[in-house]
Order: sequence, then structure tokens, then C-alpha cells
Amino acid sequence: MVATYRVVDSAASLGKRAEGIAVGLTVGSWTDLPAARQDAVRAYAGRVESIQVLEDAGPGRVVADISIGYPAATFTGTFASLLTIVFGKLSMDGEIRLVDLSLPDRFASGFPGPKFGAVGVRQRTGVADRPLLMSIFKACVGRDVADLTAHFRAQAAGGADLIKDDEIFFNEDCAPPEARVPAFAEAARQVYEETGHRAHYAVNLTGPVYGLRERAKRLAELGADALLFNAIPYGLDVLRELAEDPDIQVPLLIHPATSGAIYAAPHHGMAANILLGELLRLAGGDIAIYPSPYGTVTLDRAEGLRLVDALRRPGPHRAVLPAPSAGIFPGLVPRLVEDLGVDCVVNAGGAIHGHPGGATAGAAAFRSAIAAVVAGQDLADAAQASEPLAVALEKWGRGV
Amino acid sequence: MVATYRVVDSAASLGKRAEGIAVGLTVGSWTDLPAARQDAVRAYAGRVESIQVLEDAGPGRVVADISIGYPAATFTGTFASLLTIVFGKLSMDGEIRLVDLSLPDRFASGFPGPKFGAVGVRQRTGVADRPLLMSIFKACVGRDVADLTAHFRAQAAGGADLIKDDEIFFNEDCAPPEARVPAFAEAARQVYEETGHRAHYAVNLTGPVYGLRERAKRLAELGADALLFNAIPYGLDVLRELAEDPDIQVPLLIHPATSGAIYAAPHHGMAANILLGELLRLAGGDIAIYPSPYGTVTLDRAEGLRLVDALRRPGPHRAVLPAPSAGIFPGLVPRLVEDLGVDCVVNAGGAIHGHPGGATAGAAAFRSAIAAVVAGQDLADAAQASEPLAVALEKWGRGV
Repeated sequence: MVATYRVVDSAASLGKRAEGIAVGLTVGSWTDLPAARQDAVRAYAGRVESIQVLEDAGPGRVVADISIGYPAATFTGTFASLLTIVFGKLSMDGEIRLVDLSLPDRFASGFPGPKFGAVGVRQRTGVADRPLLMSIFKACVGRDVADLTAHFRAQAAGGADLIKDDEIFFNEDCAPPEARVPAFAEAARQVYEETGHRAHYAVNLTGPVYGLRERAKRLAELGADALLFNAIPYGLDVLRELAEDPDIQVPLLIHPATSGAIYAAPHHGMAANILLGELLRLAGGDIAIYPSPYGTVTLDRAEGLRLVDALRRPGPHRAVLPAPSAGIFPGLVPRLVEDLGVDCVVNAGGAIHGHPGGATAGAAAFRSAIAAVVAGQDLADAAQASEPLAVALEKWGRGV
Repeated sequence: MVATYRVVDSAASLGKRAEGIAVGLTVGSWTDLPAARQDAVRAYAGRVESIQVLEDAGPGRVVADISIGYPAATFTGTFASLLTIVFGKLSMDGEIRLVDLSLPDRFASGFPGPKFGAVGVRQRTGVADRPLLMSIFKACVGRDVADLTAHFRAQAAGGADLIKDDEIFFNEDCAPPEARVPAFAEAARQVYEETGHRAHYAVNLTGPVYGLRERAKRLAELGADALLFNAIPYGLDVLRELAEDPDIQVPLLIHPATSGAIYAAPHHGMAANILLGELLRLAGGDIAIYPSPYGTVTLDRAEGLRLVDALRRPGPHRAVLPAPSAGIFPGLVPRLVEDLGVDCVVNAGGAIHGHPGGATAGAAAFRSAIAAVVAGQDLADAAQASEPLAVALEKWGRGV
């Protein structure tokens, strides 16, 4: 297992720093142990793989990447062990950022990975060869089941494949999950009868952490098609337990809430491609929401592409569907597909609900844009046959 | 519930930004809902409490504190709901750092808080009026039970009150917790018979997240005196479940591993006083390890004092014992007590094991220093009656 750290440090002390990481994070200090015991301990020690100076950072200081190899035997297969060992103490040691994590397949295989993944989500939704459209509830809190059901129906009628709760929807005063799930399932059924399109509902999985598996099963039994999950505040080990549970047979849609506290600083924390890419896939997310490079809540474009690569590259686990989010409008769909291909989720809120024709027209505009892009048609041409798309292009313009 | 964010932003847009936070993180956009529904939703909306400009940050830009009040009804009492709502999306929104969190007692009472706290830990260890001495195992991984037991015994014989595993001790090849706990308990008993001093062992609680409660109970039954817990990678909601479980009747010693990924950047993430202070206490930690301002792994001194204040200030929960760590040697004890008072844990590893006389002398040197400080005696005077302390002062010097 190789971890790469980007440090800002004195050029002269890089070698010593690297040695300190390799030993200090694995076996601790041990050079004063008796020789026979040193041999036993050495098997668990890390090793400096490489030190690469990237650029100057003022007098005597440089930005450098330090790569450390860790013996797999040090870890026990929980994220707690992985994170504590590779970035426990070290996270507190000045300007240091975990920028890459390279796991051998043998080690990665100890983690569940996605139960459904991109292929499984496509099978369950029946959407084969185009990006899926995901629509976000707005203003969930404080609205009752009837009100939210009408809101769900409007999005479904416009052709949204997935409809997800707002991730901040924890409150259960007005519309607890056990009440809204069956109501939305019935609305989805009715819309399917009326239009032939079946929308899938991702309900926010909330509540005490040790009750989540039971609640997930109950919500799936009540008709939830997928579970939205705030995996960062609840913990990757919790996500993993959900993914590993054979009785939870619905996809896990992972929200990046609070992840910016870890990935957003330039010289600290952990890169988004590790946290929301590599680790999320190991833990078993099926769809990964992450900040798009197009909107206001942005992620560095290169880091975003590395994130998507981590979700998809060949390995022991199924590929995860990327869902770049924030600031997505129909005019951006060509750019999205250019960046990610068709194997992604177009995730929108404001540009669905803010459509002058309402949420149904908002979703329909996206579906027209998606159909056009897949058919190789220009959006302007497609808009001639789609009034909702024409209105959306008029309001939000073309993509970057 | 009032959250304060430190942002670096355009001076002109601060008001709009604050409004966006207050509404966007609670009920989402809702101004286009029908008037009757707006009233229902308004009860759950956040409110801008204050905007305070702190300093200039380049042309047109300032550093400012934005305080937002959130209605308690928005939260459901999990850390996942608290963190997702106050810093979910927002954590990804540019240069923004959560610097303060002020919870009304009524809301805080919904969290368990420490089961033992400072008072309870003192009762269990029988240490009434002086700082406790905690000693850290070194080089745990790869050593067998007999070897580690000898290591435990050496620390105990020197007078360590608490002896804790290294937080990276996950591996179970050579000395699984179920084997070492009874061995160390027996060693502690023997040392007590020989010296009258009883050391307490904090075993690292590891393994799959949904098995932690059962394992905690098993280890306590086997004789573990306390549980070391990596609460940040496992999750605060998991810590809370451990603290709330009436069958887990041993203190929880919380390690800050990986917390630097969240608190260490200047303009992102969450202040240490919130993460390792406020939230840790709500979740039920009994002893809080955090980076001391004296060593190499440092935390800003003012942030460290705010952290300790969060652990102790009057409120609905028991006070937590602070354990500033990294770079602690006997000569620092006067400074430590000056900063924190006697209600703290002196936590040391290198300056115990690196003592020329061995770990027993290393621990004894600390105990002499602690006794001197409590008696108002100068360390140099105390060293005349304590050879271990004299050697330690010679090797590491006096504190800053």
C-alpha cells in the first residue's frame, strides 16, 4: 500500500521527515529494541518509496511528494485502521496533504466495493445508454407528505430517473421517511402508468448510527429505490457495513456533505479523489455526488477528473457512477458528456425547479438535452422540437 | 444553536453570503413556495445573527466572522445531522472555517456527554489532587504478549496512572486485545502488590464498527480499565453510542488521529476547539488527547486553550480531562499546570521510554515532577531527592 504526501518543508530535512513517517506511523520508535525483537517488528514497518521535489516554496523550503509503502499486515481492513495509520498523527504535523493512495488489489479486495455500481444502477433503473437524470428535492424540511408528494410527482413526470432528498433532510416532524417513502412509491407508480416513465426515489438515511442497517431495510421494504447517505459525517466504516449487508438490496447514493472540511484546503487534509473517489468506492458507494467544476461550489477540475478515474478504473470492484453537482443546467450537458462520457448522472436542483414552466418542464428540458447529446445533435436544433429545452437555454444559456 | 464561520470573501457580498448560509443550509430555497407553505417552512430556517469584519484580505476582500442561528428543530440529535446542516455543503464553499459552535443547554442535553468525566476518572484511579500521569506504549505492533507485558510492567512500576496503547495498534497477529488485556491486568495487580501503586490500562478499541460495543464490553470484562478510541475516523456518532451504552462501564480516552485533516488548515475545516473540545464532550469522551503547544506536533496555543475551555466550562455535561500530548518531558510539568491547573493528564511517551534509566525511571521522573509542582516546590530542589528527575532534567532540560 503506497501513500503519497505533499509536504511543504525544509529541503534539507526531507529525507529525515520521510523516514520518520515510514517508521513513526507504523511501528513507532523501535531502534532501541533488542536485535531479535527488531526483526519481528521490522516486518510491520513502512518504507520510503520516493521523494520528489516539485517546486520552491521560499528560502530553503520546497513543495515535495513523499511516497511511503506500508505493509498490508499493518492494517485490519477497517477504514479506521487505514486512516489512523496513514494519516492519523501525520494529519496534525504541519503542512502535509495526503494526495494519493495506491492499494494493491489483494488489499482492496478486503473491502466490499459497490453492491450495484454503475451497471447495477442502470439495470435497476432501466436506463441503458445515456446519462441518468437526477433531480433534487428542494425545501424538504417543514413540508408535509402531501405537499412533498406533489413535488415528487412533478419531477417524476418530467422524466427524472432518480429523485433525491436534500441531504439536510433529517427532521421528521412533518414527513418522516416511513411516511413519505410509500407515498412517493405510489406517486412513481401512477406517473409510470400515465407516462411510461418510472422515477426512482433516494430517501435520506438518517437516525442513530447503530440503527441505520435496520432502518435501511425497513425503508427498502416500504418502497425506497435507493438510499441517500451522508457517508463522511457518519463514517466510511458505517457505509461499508451498509454495503456489506446482504439484506440491503438498494443502491447507496453518497453525498459529500462535510467533505470540504477535509479536501478543500491547499496544503492540508486529503485530496477529494481519495476521499470521495478511492475510499468511497472501497466502502461501497454506488453513486458518488461531488462538486462539479462548473458551478459555484467548485472542485479543482484536475482533482475532479482524478476522482472520476478512481471511481471507474479497472480493479477488483464495480465502477461507481459519478454525479457532478452544483450549478448544472441543460446547456452544460454536452460539456458534461465530453468530460465524463455517458456513464454519469446529471444532477440538478435549481435548474429543474427554477424552470419558468415548473419542475416538470425543468426535468423535461434536461431529458431533451441528454437525448440530443447522445444522438449527436446540437442543443439548439433539439430545442426546436422541445419547448422546455428552448426555454431553459434561453434562461441559463449554453455551457462553458 | 449559533454557528460562527470565518470567511475570506468580498466585503460587498458578505450580507448576501450570510443570508445564503442561513437559508441554504436549513430549508433550501423556498421563497417561491405559496405563502401559506412559507410560514410552515420559516420555522426551520436559519437566521443571520451577526457579521463582523476582522481584517483586510487584499483588494475588496476581508476576513469576517458570520454567525448564523439555527432552530433546534432542524436537528435530530445525531452528529451527522448537526455536521451536515451546519457544515455540509458549506464546507465545500471556498475559504470558510467553522470557528465556533454555541449550543443551548436544552439542545446539548440531548447528547450523552461523558459517563465518567474528570471526576469519575479520578475516582476510578484514586488520584485526587494532582495531574494524572499517562504513559504511551511504544512499538506495539509485532511484539508478543510476554514482551508487551514486560513493557507494561516497567511503566506501571514507575508510577504511571494510565498506560495507553499506541493509537496505530490495530494489528492482532502477535498480541490481540483479548490476550493482552488479561496479561496486563495481572501485571498491574502484581505491581500493585509490590509497590502499592495501581496502573490502569487503556486498550485500543478496534475492529468492525458495528462490533465495537460488544468488543468494548468483552474487553472491560477481561480487565481493561479504559478504552482508547480513534473517534474521528470511526465517527462521533459511534463514540456517542459507546458513551450511551450503560453496559460499557469504563472511561473513553479519545485520540485525535486524523483530526488534523479537519482542523489544521488556516482558512478551511473546523477549529480544534469544536472538533476535539465541544463535540468530543457532547459525544461522551472522558479524556481528550490533543496536540500540546509545546512539542513538534503543535496546535495554536490560543486554540488549545479554547479547546480546554470547551472541555470544562459549566454546562449540562461532566467536564472532560485534557491530555495535551507530543513533546512532553518532566521539565514541562510546571508550565502544564500553570496553563491547565492540576485537572489534567500529563501524557508522555518518548520522555518515558527514552529516559537513560529506562521506562520505570522515566515514569518516576514525571511523578516526582508532578509531586513537586503540586507541593509548590522547584523542580531543581525536587531533583535532589529524585535521581530519575535529576537525570531527566539533565537530558531534556526545563520547560519553556
